[in-house]
Amino acid sequence: MNESVKSVIKENQELYKQWLIDFCAIPSVAAQNRGMDESLKFLQHLFDTYVKEDIEFIPTGGYPVAYSHIKSKVPYTISFYNHYDVQPEDPIELWNTPPFEATEIDGKLYARGIADNKGNLIARLAAIHAMKQVNPELPINVKFIFEGEEEIGSVNLPAFAEKHADKIQSDGNIWEFGYRDADDRLQVSLGVKGMVYVELSVEVANTDLHSANATIIESPAWRLVWALSTLKDQNDRILIPGFYDDVIPPTEEEMSALSQYLYDEKANKEYLEISRFVNNLSGIDLKRKHLFEPTCNICGIDSGYKGEGSKTVLPHKAFAKLDFRLVPGQDPNKILQLLRNHLDEKGFKDIEMKVFGTEFAARTHPNELLAKAVIETITENTDVPPNIVPNTPGTGPMYDLCQRYGIPSVSFGVGNFASNNHAPNENIRLIDFYEHIELVADVVERFANKLQSEGVDSNYATN
Amino acid sequence: MNESVKSVIKENQELYKQWLIDFCAIPSVAAQNRGMDESLKFLQHLFDTYVKEDIEFIPTGGYPVAYSHIKSKVPYTISFYNHYDVQPEDPIELWNTPPFEATEIDGKLYARGIADNKGNLIARLAAIHAMKQVNPELPINVKFIFEGEEEIGSVNLPAFAEKHADKIQSDGNIWEFGYRDADDRLQVSLGVKGMVYVELSVEVANTDLHSANATIIESPAWRLVWALSTLKDQNDRILIPGFYDDVIPPTEEEMSALSQYLYDEKANKEYLEISRFVNNLSGIDLKRKHLFEPTCNICGIDSGYKGEGSKTVLPHKAFAKLDFRLVPGQDPNKILQLLRNHLDEKGFKDIEMKVFGTEFAARTHPNELLAKAVIETITENTDVPPNIVPNTPGTGPMYDLCQRYGIPSVSFGVGNFASNNHAPNENIRLIDFYEHIELVADVVERFANKLQSEGVDSNYATN
Repeated sequence: MNESVKSVIKENQELYKQWLIDFCAIPSVAAQNRGMDESLKFLQHLFDTYVKEDIEFIPTGGYPVAYSHIKSKVPYTISFYNHYDVQPEDPIELWNTPPFEATEIDGKLYARGIADNKGNLIARLAAIHAMKQVNPELPINVKFIFEGEEEIGSVNLPAFAEKHADKIQSDGNIWEFGYRDADDRLQVSLGVKGMVYVELSVEVANTDLHSANATIIESPAWRLVWALSTLKDQNDRILIPGFYDDVIPPTEEEMSALSQYLYDEKANKEYLEISRFVNNLSGIDLKRKHLFEPTCNICGIDSGYKGEGSKTVLPHKAFAKLDFRLVPGQDPNKILQLLRNHLDEKGFKDIEMKVFGTEFAARTHPNELLAKAVIETITENTDVPPNIVPNTPGTGPMYDLCQRYGIPSVSFGVGNFASNNHAPNENIRLIDFYEHIELVADVVERFANKLQSEGVDSNYATN
Repeated sequence: MNESVKSVIKENQELYKQWLIDFCAIPSVAAQNRGMDESLKFLQHLFDTYVKEDIEFIPTGGYPVAYSHIKSKVPYTISFYNHYDVQPEDPIELWNTPPFEATEIDGKLYARGIADNKGNLIARLAAIHAMKQVNPELPINVKFIFEGEEEIGSVNLPAFAEKHADKIQSDGNIWEFGYRDADDRLQVSLGVKGMVYVELSVEVANTDLHSANATIIESPAWRLVWALSTLKDQNDRILIPGFYDDVIPPTEEEMSALSQYLYDEKANKEYLEISRFVNNLSGIDLKRKHLFEPTCNICGIDSGYKGEGSKTVLPHKAFAKLDFRLVPGQDPNKILQLLRNHLDEKGFKDIEMKVFGTEFAARTHPNELLAKAVIETITENTDVPPNIVPNTPGTGPMYDLCQRYGIPSVSFGVGNFASNNHAPNENIRLIDFYEHIELVADVVERFANKLQSEGVDSNYATN
């Protein structure tokens, strides 16, 4: 590791922490159109005041992509994909601290979006800032691509990438997220799942009714329950005909990587206070299901009276929000069609389907130079070897931004197994944040060196 | 009808309307412990200032029963059962006027609880007030029994009735509710369904999780959906073994009354904007299901993210609130046990069951003197013959307060088929309110005369 860069990072720890605290104070919930402009202004301020490079806000039809290209004299490029939007903070009553006031407790900072994804965004910006303090000439072109719609399904990113294929092109991409396992190993993730997010809703009468009418007036809540119950059985098998048809099973190489991958069952059980995993799985079967199998999950369900005590009402509306995590081979648009066909065939034409987002799965080979650079950096600079995850259970627009354009993408970041992404009391450890800044700086140098020494033909050689 | 009483009622219309408006301003939502004391104070005020009789608040373990015994010199007694609590007002966004400010629009008054049950309570009190203005000596003992927990299942009323059997005893009871049909006929209801109200809930981990974990962490929302789907099939048949075993089918006499009973399918379809009834039923089959069959209704269901847009979360809790309306023969405590056994046998021991209330069904024979008095009063004093309903689809503690003690009970009241009980924009027509005051006064006199002329042995002869 470059000791000069490392010492600049150490000197600037308080500054970088303050960037993060200020960023987390902005409630940039894209789903609710809150704090989005303010986030862009804040990024503008960081680039103007500290990084001293241009940042542009590229229209997308939704929230803009904040984009910066920091040029160097070499014909290679590394890109960073992050997002400035966050998940909604509810259920707010389960937070121990205000979600939009980053609060430090026992070496951790708590705030909505701090792990997903503001901590990573700021750490990577800090790494480039520190490198430029030591040498204004970077060893490689650097591109920042900050999306504003990741938490609402990146609906406009595919078209953005198509339209600005030159801007997104790079020799390797560092993806937005990353976690430290319960056993302290840093995960290096080489793929993401795809997704379909839908809302299923049904409406019967034009008003809620006294529940005495449940004898003869149809119930939207029952319609929805019956429809949902046809989608997945109690053994967690998805029942939509054709759903599994296109799944590409993991390769031998991936299954072998899976046996190296650690999922700490005991720590997760204790942390979550659960007695068992789905279908009582453990070991390799549990890991295989977690990383390589698709899901059909109920994110939310709502109908009628949800308050204290009892209210005898026949609701007139019901809805459920579902996400399906998809694996390589599955086409989200085909899945949507299969779902609609299935509902129709089961007699649920009255159930309306609203699509909130679709994404393909993506995967990067562990022999890619960027993957090697990340793995070496972690191996040489930390005490614990990395945990190489051939495919993460999470989702992101990696296919649309990278795989589709031949760009390998690798994930590692500031989170940990108890970061509570998308949940109350989201947090990161400050030492992980500072370490990530150092590791990113090292990866950037190492990747540049590898590209040069191997004389790779750049994906994107122009400056 | 006693013309002197009628003219006193006419003179006092504005006063009685003001009583009602003031009463509706009190948000007496028992389920949420709001405005309950204030309601009792208001009743005290009406009795002190206008009725000039004693009212006492009898402890029950929950909210007190407000009780008044207005004595006369004859050995017969009529009782009125009403309740001063109301349903919660949510979803408040669907109200066109503030739910706790009675608002007059086109001859209707809109407010939470105005049809269920404050309109009836005030009208009956007004009838007795008016009768006393004409003759301070009433033709029969009058008892008012005003409960504060009807909307939360009357949990303490059975024990109250047992403990105060002398206080509740009467020769006939006028029950709390009543509606005018779409064709303008006043319903005279001779029975109520029973009820079981339960909340089914399930909890898995100790926090909501990123939905990527849905591969391996159990979902409470799915557990609940699967459990619910075992309770009732898509043909509305309840699947709990033994559920229908004790149902006493309607007698020939009741089926014959059913053919007289009007349910205006067209008006209800238009009003609710629905295209069909459950199972496409119509005619006598529809009426039979409505009045004589039990239900299993989802009053509310809740899990995870219910806001705008998308949130990819694996919720850690889910619950549903269910009411079962029961018919004569069904024992609510047995039904609870059957439900628990069924869930256990289907593999849902993890689903917790909280009981909010149980009630038996009750029914009064149309030949009872009070039933005759009500039917005659309506027939002689209104333009449209009554619609005699052998059993209403609604529920109330009629068994515990009346049938168990041999007291016949008859319902008629100020509501109409579009009163939106338990729903937004609850309302009554002012002309129905004023008419009910007159009719009640006539029923009281007529019932007293019938008892005397037939020389009935009173249930409760002491004064």
